[in-house]
Formats: sequence, C-alpha cells, structure tokens
Amino acid sequence: MASDATIQDVARLARVSPSTVSNLLNGRSERMRPETLERVQGAIAQLGYSPNRAARHLKTGRIEMFGVIVPSVANPFYGAFASGVERAALKVGYQILLGNSERDPDRERRFAEELWSYGVRGLISGSSPLALTHLATLVEHGLRIVAFDRQALPVDDLPVDSISVDNVLAATLATEHLLKLGHRRIGLVTGPSRTVNRQGRLEGYQKGLRAYGVTFDPNLLWEKALEKGFGDTEGVELGRSGARELLSKPNRPTALLAINDMYAFGAYAGARDLGLRIPEDVSVVGIDDIVLAEVVNPSLTTVRQPLSEMTQAAVDIIIGRIEGKDVGPQHHLTMKPELIVRQSTAEFTG
Amino acid sequence: MASDATIQDVARLARVSPSTVSNLLNGRSERMRPETLERVQGAIAQLGYSPNRAARHLKTGRIEMFGVIVPSVANPFYGAFASGVERAALKVGYQILLGNSERDPDRERRFAEELWSYGVRGLISGSSPLALTHLATLVEHGLRIVAFDRQALPVDDLPVDSISVDNVLAATLATEHLLKLGHRRIGLVTGPSRTVNRQGRLEGYQKGLRAYGVTFDPNLLWEKALEKGFGDTEGVELGRSGARELLSKPNRPTALLAINDMYAFGAYAGARDLGLRIPEDVSVVGIDDIVLAEVVNPSLTTVRQPLSEMTQAAVDIIIGRIEGKDVGPQHHLTMKPELIVRQSTAEFTG
Repeated sequence: MASDATIQDVARLARVSPSTVSNLLNGRSERMRPETLERVQGAIAQLGYSPNRAARHLKTGRIEMFGVIVPSVANPFYGAFASGVERAALKVGYQILLGNSERDPDRERRFAEELWSYGVRGLISGSSPLALTHLATLVEHGLRIVAFDRQALPVDDLPVDSISVDNVLAATLATEHLLKLGHRRIGLVTGPSRTVNRQGRLEGYQKGLRAYGVTFDPNLLWEKALEKGFGDTEGVELGRSGARELLSKPNRPTALLAINDMYAFGAYAGARDLGLRIPEDVSVVGIDDIVLAEVVNPSLTTVRQPLSEMTQAAVDIIIGRIEGKDVGPQHHLTMKPELIVRQSTAEFTG
Repeated sequence: MASDATIQDVARLARVSPSTVSNLLNGRSERMRPETLERVQGAIAQLGYSPNRAARHLKTGRIEMFGVIVPSVANPFYGAFASGVERAALKVGYQILLGNSERDPDRERRFAEELWSYGVRGLISGSSPLALTHLATLVEHGLRIVAFDRQALPVDDLPVDSISVDNVLAATLATEHLLKLGHRRIGLVTGPSRTVNRQGRLEGYQKGLRAYGVTFDPNLLWEKALEKGFGDTEGVELGRSGARELLSKPNRPTALLAINDMYAFGAYAGARDLGLRIPEDVSVVGIDDIVLAEVVNPSLTTVRQPLSEMTQAAVDIIIGRIEGKDVGPQHHLTMKPELIVRQSTAEFTG
C-alpha cells in the first residue's frame, strides 16, 4: 500500500517535526543540517513512505479517479451504466467515484465541487438536466465533463463532450411499432422531470404519431409527479399510477409507451390492477432494454440503448481529456437505438 | 463555490510565486517582507480564495465525505441501499463516494486505499466477503468501517462495526413458509460467491428443513457459477439457469428459495422456459423485498430487510466514529427480517 506510513511516522522515526519532513518533500531543504536531511531520508526509505496521493494530485494535477453522476442508482439502467463505466475505467487504471443526483442540479453541482476540491478533474454526468449552467464555473476552471444520455444543447455554450442514444429516434421506433400493429390511441407515461432525454423521447413519440397522421392527444400524455419529488426511484410507482389513470379513461388507450423500462414494469402492474391483460388488452413498450426486460412476464418489447458501446466511448473521451491527449473540439456522439420486439405488444384487434 | 480561485491565481495577482502563497497559508511568513505579505493577503481576499479543501482535509483530518462499497450497483437492492445511505448522509451534511466491488476483495481494498489517500476516513462496506483481512492495514491506520449486510465474525478480529439483517432467520422464515404450505422438496438457487450473508442464508435454509424433519438434499442446492465470474450482475441469469436445471430433474423440487429477489426473477423466467406456472406448478420465494418484488407477475413472496432502519443506523455509526463522538466498543446490530407473503407461493397439492 502506498500510504501505509504517514508523515507523522516519518517525523517520529527521524526525530524531527512533521513540518521538517514536509519542507524536505517540498524541496525546501537548503537550510537543513546534513545529518537531519540524512535521517529524514533514511526514515522515508525505511518506512516506504510516499507523500499522500491527494497531496501529489494537488501538485501534479494527475489523478487516478474520475467522477460519475447518475440520476438514480435505484434504476438498474444507471446501475448497468455505472458498472460499464467502471469496468472500462479499471481496464486503464482509473477508479470511479459515483454520485447520485436524483436529477437535482444543486446536488450535482455540490458533488462536482467536492470532487474538484479532492483534485478530481474529470466527470461523466448522466443526469441530463435541461441546462448545464450549474456546472459552468467548474468547467471554466478546467473540469472536463462528458454529458451522458444527453445531447448537447446550444443553450449550454460550454466546452462539454456528449454521448447519447438518439432519444427522438428511440421513441419514434417504439411509437411506430405500435402504430404498425394498428394502435391509434397510444398513451405516454413519463415522470416529473423534463430532462433532455425525456424531452427527446416525448418529441419522438409525437413525431411517430405525425408520421401516421395521428393527432397528438394531450389526454394521453401522463406526466404527473409524485408529491415527494424526483421520479427515478419511484419509476415503478409512477408507471403504475400513470397506467392506471390512463387505462381508466372512458376512451382508454390501447397501447402505452413508457418513458423507460422501469416505468413499463410499473405499467404492467397498473394494467393488472385493472384486470387488463398484456398484450391482449393493452400493449406496452419500454425504452432502455435493461436486463430484466427479457425476464418479466410477458417479456417486454423495448428499444435498446447500445450501452457498452456508449460507456466505452464515454470513458475513452474523459480519459483523453483528463490526460490532455485529446485537445480537439468537442465530441457529440449520437448512438443508434434498436427496437427489440418481445411479448408485450400485439396487434390491435378492437 | 469555495475553490473558485487557485493558489496560482493568487500568486499571479500578488506577483509572487505559488510557494510564497503556500508559505503564508502554512504559517511560514516570518521571513516575508510586509509589503509582500500584504499583497498576498489582499489577493486572497480579493479572489475569495480558500485553500483547497483536500489540502485542508489533510491538515485537519476533517472530511465531508465517506465511502460506500456495494457488491454490485446492478442489483437494485444495493441501489436502494446506496440511495438510502446517501439520503441519510446528506441530511447531516455528508456526501458519499460509491464504489462497486463486484465482491472482489482486491477491488475493495484498492477503492478503500484510494479513498484513504484522498483523506476520506470512513467507509460503509456492503460487500460482505468472508474475511475483512484485506482491509486490516487501513483499519489499523484509522479507517473507520461499518460492515453492512454482514455480521461480524470472530475471524476478523478487527475493530469494525457491523449491521446486518439476521440472514439465518431470513432464510429460515422463507423455508418454513414453504414447509407450512406442504412443500418438502425445496430447491435453493444461489450464486458463485460464498459471502457471509449467503452463508447465513444457506444455514437458515438447512435449519428450516431440520425443524420440519426434512433431510437436506445436496441435489437441490444449485450454486454453480457463471464462467465469467461474480454473480450479482448476472443474478437474473444465474437464477434462470439454476431454476431450469433444478426443475428439469426427474424428481424436481416443488418450490424454490432464491438467494435474493433478482435470482427469484430469474427463477420465474427459468420456470417459464420449462412451461411451468408459478405458483401452480412451482412456488418461488425470494429474499430482500426490492421495489420490483411487488410488481412482477405473480408478485413475489419474499423476506423483507428493514432497509431504511439499517441505512440510518449505518450512517449514524460511521459519522459518530469519523467525528470521534462514538469511541465505545464496536456495534454489532442484527435486524429482524419479515416474511411478506404475496402470489408466488401456494399450497403443495401433489
């Protein structure tokens, strides 16, 4: 272990004050007596002492860690995202520090500041709030940011790289799949926060409807928030409430698009609460394709994000930026999603 | 923001070298000319500079963060655990740094060392390996550890606090529930790693069988590992393979206990693969009671861990230790689990 011995241990062994050791380490040894110098150097060698890494980072600007922020570790998609980033990082000798923003820009900023104050200089942010202005000061000071799950917006005007699935296309694929099956009353169940990716998915849903000449009906859009706040931990609950409410309407939708797979699982429960069968009575589509999507009953038709490709790219970019190898213009990667048809969708037979 | 300005900014504005600023900050200003001293102090005030927090932490030993290690963020139970810890920590002004060990003691040690080198002095470890010897050196140097989801073992012999659900009781409750329903051939599906909590659950399963005079049949214990390694990310896959294998035996079990809820969801899929219905053809019980347990179809009978109580206690203890308020003997809290009966278990009618 690099930091077994402390500066105090060295000082004790060399019978000097810790500040003498510190002076030596910082190159201020010109006024040190040779025998003291020798004693301190001997103690350092004997104890295998290496100056605290944090201190070294502060001096050299080198880090071995970068930060990762997710909106909610309770959503397995972000769990898988964090795991993927960590795996890619470990391969090249980096560790990650994971934070949970619960989509709150203030929490995200505080976390980024803490990391910054610890000497960490890179951050992959998966929180995708509508603007990144809360991070502007840190970016100006040199914090490198890769915005994940979020396309860059002109409003940002910040030198930030970004990687995202094409969220508009993802929702368009899902909606058109339902339209091709004959559905025309398609509900959308989404959460309280208007993030960039959710905005994109809403747009894709409307675009899909338009392509088939179906007028967007605001009554079929459910986006009520839970009282207690953010939506990801409660994705399942929200999906359930949303589905229950939409499916209780007199002229109920025959299909539901859920903003992500967790909401879709909630929608399953909401449909079941009303005695409706999936897909016989109502079709359900998700977005993300988390591991459980294939396992639930019925298995979930969803739109897959190419997660391992995305996490690898995010890690490559952030490390390139941190290490100063990549000094080119910002990268804005948009990855193609893929429709995965399973058992939760069926032809409209009404 | 506390660290807007850097020491370089101050030095530039005061037209001195950074080491002069550093000398002043470290109380070595006796040989500084008064006008220099004044210029540096003016620059510090003008820029609102505060010495880098990391540096302050190194000096004062005060931290505003502690670490949290989970075996896998891909298991929503640990996602919920991390969220719960973070919520409790934020309330008292602490941030958490989350790491993912994938049950690898080496990764856990590396993460703990990195945190240590950054000045972090507290860690809640949810990884529950069989021994904590890989963390012994850090503990001897003063790292405070609360072992979560793991009862202390005599083998540890380390001053570590611990909080765990009673895993033996959890599995006993689950097994006895099945026995009361008339099941006698009860399979157990578990993963590759023998952690303390899994060991406890295996013991509880055997204890439950014994209480009903049922001989433990090693053929009904499935614990094969995936080729590629650890079991949590692949919990669902393992649960599926295990269930499929056990349920394909000539004298197949009529009920399955899954080591946790993710394995239980996998077992659902494995049963479905064989055309078996839950609970009509096979009963399934999980352990943990994650959010999805109530939502899957059929809803899962499982044993609940009192998670919010456990995370609150873990945070109270670790902060007490870090801040030196709690200098008493180690705490070893064992929380009571609770059986939650839902739709996945039914009377044995064979």
